Amino acid sequence: MSKDQKEDCIFCQIVNGKIPVDLVYESDDLIAFPDINPKAPVHIVIIPKRHIDPNEDISGTDYPMTGDVLKAAKNIASKKGVAESGFRLLANVGADAGQEIDHLHFHLLGGRRLGDLG
Amino acid sequence: MSKDQKEDCIFCQIVNGKIPVDLVYESDDLIAFPDINPKAPVHIVIIPKRHIDPNEDISGTDYPMTGDVLKAAKNIASKKGVAESGFRLLANVGADAGQEIDHLHFHLLGGRRLGDLG
Repeated sequence: MSKDQKEDCIFCQIVNGKIPVDLVYESDDLIAFPDINPKAPVHIVIIPKRHIDPNEDISGTDYPMTGDVLKAAKNIASKKGVAESGFRLLANVGADAGQEIDHLHFHLLGGRRLGDLG
Repeated sequence: MSKDQKEDCIFCQIVNGKIPVDLVYESDDLIAFPDINPKAPVHIVIIPKRHIDPNEDISGTDYPMTGDVLKAAKNIASKKGVAESGFRLLANVGADAGQEIDHLHFHLLGGRRLGDLG
């Protein structure tokens, strides 16, 4: 377990390979894999390899670059055939939004006309 | 009109002050204002001051920092009283997601239990 990770975090265990996933993207800072409970034909989770808790007051420079996240999202959208039709990229922070895991993560949704924003 | 902006873009006109809004946040790179058609009790739009089209193939370093966007989101959530209850932050890219304006923007939604991801 690297110092950048948290032992009891399921996403850190995915980063470490302890929990196997079908990796759809990997960069120096990010990995992506299918959501276990998909809400759309394409539903991919993008996470930083480092354990970053969006509820903690951490330095902005500790976050991944928005551009890197969007680059990952576009790469995944191309692989999954939704680059032209479009996709939604979102992060939930806190209970009202339904955040369940305290490791920053972005949902990429596509493959159908998406509904309301929440 | 600055070289960083696009003349016929409604969000650039907001950045320039040509279209008045109730600014709820401003930093060097970002501004935020209420969505004109709110989908939740708190619905704020966060945009970079520069015209960035997420559909164009631009360098990752041209994007705002994820950390800066999240910092803005947390600041706004505090001002609007949803920091504890939580919020959703999302970007729509392309038609299926309902993207209507080609200037990168993030929706911040909160103030009620949020529903499905789209």
